[in-house]
Amino acid sequence: MSRPSKRELARLITGIENGDPNALRTLREWYGRAGRAHIVGVTGAPGSGKSTLVAALTRLARSRGQTVAIVSVDPSSPFTGGAILGDRIRMRELFEDEGVFIRSMANRGALGGIARSTADIAVALDAAGYDLVFIETVGAGQAEVEVARVAETIVVVEAPGLGDDIQAIKAGILEIADILVVNKADREGAERTMSALQAALDLSTPSAGTAGHHGPGALRRVEAPAANAAGWRIPVLKTIATEGTGVEAVLDAIARHRQYLDQGAGAQRRAQRLEYEVTIRLRDLLLKRAMQQIEPARYRALIEACIARELHPQDAAQALLNALSREADRTPVE
Amino acid sequence: MSRPSKRELARLITGIENGDPNALRTLREWYGRAGRAHIVGVTGAPGSGKSTLVAALTRLARSRGQTVAIVSVDPSSPFTGGAILGDRIRMRELFEDEGVFIRSMANRGALGGIARSTADIAVALDAAGYDLVFIETVGAGQAEVEVARVAETIVVVEAPGLGDDIQAIKAGILEIADILVVNKADREGAERTMSALQAALDLSTPSAGTAGHHGPGALRRVEAPAANAAGWRIPVLKTIATEGTGVEAVLDAIARHRQYLDQGAGAQRRAQRLEYEVTIRLRDLLLKRAMQQIEPARYRALIEACIARELHPQDAAQALLNALSREADRTPVE
Repeated sequence: MSRPSKRELARLITGIENGDPNALRTLREWYGRAGRAHIVGVTGAPGSGKSTLVAALTRLARSRGQTVAIVSVDPSSPFTGGAILGDRIRMRELFEDEGVFIRSMANRGALGGIARSTADIAVALDAAGYDLVFIETVGAGQAEVEVARVAETIVVVEAPGLGDDIQAIKAGILEIADILVVNKADREGAERTMSALQAALDLSTPSAGTAGHHGPGALRRVEAPAANAAGWRIPVLKTIATEGTGVEAVLDAIARHRQYLDQGAGAQRRAQRLEYEVTIRLRDLLLKRAMQQIEPARYRALIEACIARELHPQDAAQALLNALSREADRTPVE
Repeated sequence: MSRPSKRELARLITGIENGDPNALRTLREWYGRAGRAHIVGVTGAPGSGKSTLVAALTRLARSRGQTVAIVSVDPSSPFTGGAILGDRIRMRELFEDEGVFIRSMANRGALGGIARSTADIAVALDAAGYDLVFIETVGAGQAEVEVARVAETIVVVEAPGLGDDIQAIKAGILEIADILVVNKADREGAERTMSALQAALDLSTPSAGTAGHHGPGALRRVEAPAANAAGWRIPVLKTIATEGTGVEAVLDAIARHRQYLDQGAGAQRRAQRLEYEVTIRLRDLLLKRAMQQIEPARYRALIEACIARELHPQDAAQALLNALSREADRTPVE
């Protein structure tokens, strides 16, 4: 295929977000062509400056001749057209660059849809020929871990002085990092943040011979999407993204991590990611089919019984499951 | 029943977290007794001081003769035994108070399990007779919205100077607030934070006559768990939780919101919450049953085809669904 225009791509992504069957058909056709791009997750608390870092990485990658797509799942990001107009103005040249594609994803509330849509959108951007795909998420908890499963390389961005302590440790997302960045490194406390992160990493470094990256205490709290095999040493890098300082080292580390994955470590991670993705999709299909088959009156009655506290929600769900089993369970679902 | 000991309760909660059938049986028995407690969600970014606020609210509620349970879903919270030992020491008297129950929930990565476990745990604490149940979550995105659905009243905590902008607006969680608190109000910028929040609220206030709370722009991004009917005016309150300043007004606002819900507005919210909960549970049961029925060899083959990019994950999921439909679909699931 010829490379799709930004407009075609934007339309496809909207289709993906809306679950449009045509978009999903196109995506299936494109799927075999994907696999070339490097999908990089960038996560960090609001205020860490991760959007500015992504912008700086994008400019640098462009100067190296790479094309870049940015998907922001963070409602606070300037890429989403979010909070601050000034940010958007500062990034205007990226929006106007033909080799850069920027897309925000509204924070869709329902049933884990973000992770699935993000995966599909990453495939679309990959198939469309972008060399680098950045997925920006606000750094905290479950949603990040789910979105992170889409990325091959995960950059966790920290800034000094955001609170009393290291946000990434507090939010439990250090576990998923392949690369750690302390942005706003000209701020007071940057060195302290660097050493705290390094100390946390050292704590979590597996003893020789054990594959995987499962340290004691706080670092074990979030289930990692994939273990970092012993061969990858997580770098802790300093940047001042607003000035471009240190950005080159981050982009180099990202490229090095890709090489590392290509040398074998990526296969297990990819398999785990796909298992997760298939499971999520199956779960959603099962629910969709069930919702089509359930009698509204029965559903209503069960909910009423829960409201009256005569029935526990688990038993209501079980009753629905049993009712489904008794009916013909062969309706096809698109 | 007599009131369970903290130890019995802790054991039950562990059972709930592990999906132990005995725990779920007990929970079912208790379900009819629940409904008295006031379930209050407290959410805010790391560094906003929400744990300190919860501690201060708990002390005040105790002095008013109420019993309190605290469930923390935030890995950074001192209640989880998290980052800072000092916090935990400062809160020791709460841990030792017979009328206070504190429980941390490990951040479970998989498939939206937090929301369901939190709902069950809230029921257990409610049935056990606690007057107030605080659920503390780190404020950002999807997981918060899901956990928030469990709470009847949601307090969003903000602090001045955490970043360049209001975290709650940035993280898109303002939409779910029933009460807004600017903690650390002695810090520089507190007034600015107050007015920014107030301005954001004013933007989102529905025009007269429209029920619901769906403002323009950033505020609409997160799907609200339930609309705030026109009758509730979201207060913006200032606190210095470390000194107890302003805490009384917050506890009063929480009580006022409960009265407001009891006068009718709570019914719709409760119905929506239960529909969501039943749906989540049905989805998980469907997946569990499917996973028991799928042939491992077929599953493996489909995943391999995805890895080879011969098959899109959506088609793999669909193939699994079709295979399930062809088989007898009557296996009961516990």
